[in-house]
Amino acid sequence: MDAAPSAPAAITCRAAVAWGPGQALVMEDVEVAPPGAMEIRVKVVSTSICRSDVTQWQSTAQPDLFPRIFGHEASGVVESVGEGVTEFQVGDHALTVFIGECMSCKHCVSGKSNMCQKLGLERKGVMHSDQKTRFSIGGKPVFHYCAVSSFSEYTVVHSGCAVKVSPTVPMDRICLLSCGVSAGLGAAWNVADISKGSSVVIFGLGTVGLSVAQGAKLRGASKIIGVDTNPDKEEKGKAFGVTDFINPGELSEPVQQVIKRLTDGGADYSFECVGDTGVVSTALQSCSDGWGLTVTLGVPKTKPEVSSHYGLLLSGRTLKGSLFGGWRPKSDIPSLVDKYTNKEIQVDGLVTHDMSFSDINKGLELMLENRCLRCVIHMPH
Amino acid sequence: MDAAPSAPAAITCRAAVAWGPGQALVMEDVEVAPPGAMEIRVKVVSTSICRSDVTQWQSTAQPDLFPRIFGHEASGVVESVGEGVTEFQVGDHALTVFIGECMSCKHCVSGKSNMCQKLGLERKGVMHSDQKTRFSIGGKPVFHYCAVSSFSEYTVVHSGCAVKVSPTVPMDRICLLSCGVSAGLGAAWNVADISKGSSVVIFGLGTVGLSVAQGAKLRGASKIIGVDTNPDKEEKGKAFGVTDFINPGELSEPVQQVIKRLTDGGADYSFECVGDTGVVSTALQSCSDGWGLTVTLGVPKTKPEVSSHYGLLLSGRTLKGSLFGGWRPKSDIPSLVDKYTNKEIQVDGLVTHDMSFSDINKGLELMLENRCLRCVIHMPH
Repeated sequence: MDAAPSAPAAITCRAAVAWGPGQALVMEDVEVAPPGAMEIRVKVVSTSICRSDVTQWQSTAQPDLFPRIFGHEASGVVESVGEGVTEFQVGDHALTVFIGECMSCKHCVSGKSNMCQKLGLERKGVMHSDQKTRFSIGGKPVFHYCAVSSFSEYTVVHSGCAVKVSPTVPMDRICLLSCGVSAGLGAAWNVADISKGSSVVIFGLGTVGLSVAQGAKLRGASKIIGVDTNPDKEEKGKAFGVTDFINPGELSEPVQQVIKRLTDGGADYSFECVGDTGVVSTALQSCSDGWGLTVTLGVPKTKPEVSSHYGLLLSGRTLKGSLFGGWRPKSDIPSLVDKYTNKEIQVDGLVTHDMSFSDINKGLELMLENRCLRCVIHMPH
Repeated sequence: MDAAPSAPAAITCRAAVAWGPGQALVMEDVEVAPPGAMEIRVKVVSTSICRSDVTQWQSTAQPDLFPRIFGHEASGVVESVGEGVTEFQVGDHALTVFIGECMSCKHCVSGKSNMCQKLGLERKGVMHSDQKTRFSIGGKPVFHYCAVSSFSEYTVVHSGCAVKVSPTVPMDRICLLSCGVSAGLGAAWNVADISKGSSVVIFGLGTVGLSVAQGAKLRGASKIIGVDTNPDKEEKGKAFGVTDFINPGELSEPVQQVIKRLTDGGADYSFECVGDTGVVSTALQSCSDGWGLTVTLGVPKTKPEVSSHYGLLLSGRTLKGSLFGGWRPKSDIPSLVDKYTNKEIQVDGLVTHDMSFSDINKGLELMLENRCLRCVIHMPH
C-alpha cells in the first residue's frame, strides 16, 4: 500500500517584482505558497510580454496593488496540485490563461460566452477563490496579475485558468497562444466571422493586429489593409497577410477617406488593435454603411470611453468587443495548439526577441517603446 | 387611337408650412410641381406625426432650410406619374418612405443593407435627383423633409421612396408602417433577431419602443422589461407585450442594477428608443456580458455622441444601430402590410389621436409634450 503523497510545501524562488507603478522590476526571493483547493502550482518555462502587462505596470490607478508580479502569457510544467484537482497531474505541460473556464456557471454552460462568472478577469491582484495572494516576501503579500503572474519561476493558478498541452509542443512559442495570438485569431474568426472575399482594415499591427491579419487571410479576405504609424510594420504586415499598408502619418487626408476609396465605400470589417479608444470612431468610419462591423480589442492606456457619432450606428454599423477573441480557454485553445503543430497558423514569426529572465526589464522597455512584437522570456531552470 | 396623356401640370393645394424652427405651422397655398422623371405625385390621405418630425422642426441646426414642409409617415393615392415610371399608375395606393430602394446600387443588390446609395436619407431639404424642391410659394422654394413632406395635401416623391399597397387596407392606420412601427418591429426581428425565451429591455415606450415590445413578444421572449419615466406607459406597455414595467424616477438605485437582478445578470437584448445618446450606456450596462446586444434606434435631440466604457464592449457586448429597422422598403414592407391585414401585428392601438389637417399644430404639441403615441392627421380631400 502506497503512502499518501505528502502535501506540497511552500517554495522559495526568484520572481521579477514591481515595487511601484513603472518602477523597474527587481529580482527577489519570493515565497510561493502551495496550491489551494482546485489550484495548481506551475514551474514557468516561458513567458512572453504582452502589451497589457506593460500598460498595467505603468498605470497609477491601483497603487495599493504593489508589490506585484506581472506576466500572464506563459507556458510551464505542473509542479504540484491542490486538493480536488483531477484534471492535471504533476509533470503535465500547460498554458496559463487570464480568463478561466469553470465549465459550470451560466456563461460556461451557455456555449456562447467566455465570460466565466467564477474565473473571469481578476482585477484585484489576488486569487479568485479566497481573495488572497500566494506570493509573499518576508511574510508581506505580493499581489498577482490576472491571477496568473508568470514573471516568476513558480506561480499558482486556478486549475480552471490553465490548459493542458502536449509535452511535444515548444513551450517557448506556444506561450503566445495564451493571450495575444489567440485574441487576434479569435477576433477574426469568432467575433467578426470574416467571410471569403471580404475587405478588412486593421488599426495597429502589433501581435494582436498581425494575428487578425493572419486570421483574415486564412478566411480568404481579398483585401487586408493594415494601418500603423510605424513604417517598419509594412514588411511584417505583408508576411501575415496584409495586402495594403497605410501609414497615417504620411497622409494629407483622414485615413478613413483613403480606406473608403480603397474599399468602394468602406471595409466590411475593421479592428481596433491599438489600445486607443479614440481610434474606435475612426475604425467605425472606415467600415461600410449597412453591414460594417468594428471589433475593438485594445486595452486603452488612457481614456476608457469609446465614443461615436450616433449616425455611424444608425446607418447600419455594429460595434463589438471581445476579450481573448471570444475563445473559451479549455474548450477551444487545444485546437489552436493543434493548428500550430500542424503548421496551419504562424506563431514563431511574432517572436522578435528571446531573452533570459534576468533581462526582463529590457523586454518591458522594448514593449514600452514599440520596438518589439513579442519578447519571450526563458526561465533559468 | 388614344391621344398621348397630357403632361401633368402644377397643382396648388394647402400645406402646413414651418417658417422657422419651432414656429407653429401655417396653412399656406403651396404650388406643387409636376413629378419629374421617375417621380410620382401623391395625394396624401393620412399622415401621422413621428418624433423625428418634431425634433427636426424644433432644431436650429439648419436655419436655411426654412420655409419647410415636414411629415414623412404617410399614405396616399398616386395622382400623377413622371417620365419613366412603370411601377405606379394613377390611382395606386402607396406608403411613402424616408429611405428609398433603387434596387440597383451596391447596397440594394447586397440583400443585407437598406442604406440605398441613391435614395438614402435626404438631409438637405431637396429631392435626390436634382437637389431642387417641388414646392414653392409665390415662386420661392419651400424645402422638403426626408424627400417626403407629407404635411401637404399633395407631395412629390421619388418612385423608389414609395411602396404600393392594396386599396383595401385602411390608409389611416397603415401610415404608421411607413416609419415608427416598422422601425420597432425590424429592430426586434432583423437587427436583434430576438430568440425564443430570451430577456429584453426597452428604454422608452413610445411607438417605436412599443413596437419593439410587440416584436419581442411575437418572437417568444419570456421577459420584456419596459423602462419609461411616464407611469401611464405601464398599461400601454403591457398591451404590447411588456411583462415588467420600471419607472426609473421611482427607483433609489440605478435602473441597470434592477434590470440585472430581474434578468440574472443582464438582459439578452436592450433597445434605446428614447432618442437620448446618454441612455445607450445604460442600455449596454443593462445587458449581459458575453452575448448582450444593445440596439440603438433613437434620433437624439441633443448630444449626438454615443459613448460607453470600453470594458462593456470587451466583456462581450455588441452595440448596433439601425434605421427603419433594417427593412428594405420595397422588398420588405409589403409583407408587414400583409401581417397587418391578417391581424398578425397590432397597429391601431398605437393611434391615440385622430385629427383633421387644420389641427396639426395640436398634434405637434402633443408629441412635444409626450402626451400621445401617434396622432393621425386626416387630410380634407
